[in-house]
Amino acid sequence: MKARIHVTLKNGVLDPQGKAIEHALSNMGFGGVDGARQGKYIELDLNETDKTKAEAAVDEMCRKLIANTVIENYSIELE
Amino acid sequence: MKARIHVTLKNGVLDPQGKAIEHALSNMGFGGVDGARQGKYIELDLNETDKTKAEAAVDEMCRKLIANTVIENYSIELE
Repeated sequence: MKARIHVTLKNGVLDPQGKAIEHALSNMGFGGVDGARQGKYIELDLNETDKTKAEAAVDEMCRKLIANTVIENYSIELE
Repeated sequence: MKARIHVTLKNGVLDPQGKAIEHALSNMGFGGVDGARQGKYIELDLNETDKTKAEAAVDEMCRKLIANTVIENYSIELE
């Protein structure tokens, strides 16, 4: 089973990477970009075949290691 | 219009961040993780309302700035 995890900064948290992208695009002549936010995307290959157990395990991984829940949100998709 | 961009390392390209996650999870007692790959996730807010034009613009942004196409793949979703 494969888990796809998106980790994004919470609203209001300063995002220097996103700002850098926004300014670079503007300097390169790409108009019409009102905002950019950068997050992380993680793919995990799991042995677990039970979806409920896999989801619980990945949720715990996110809370304990992958995401900093003080400033980041995460979402999990399993397939 | 919002663009969601995923930038992932091509197969065969060494992924130290992914390896670090994999080892950390294993050391923390999470078994059953066979592999981890880390990529980037970028959200852009666009002025453009025409989907075809937006897609062409974002594709150019990815090729010229956001992704290093020698070692990275990218995918674009618009909504």
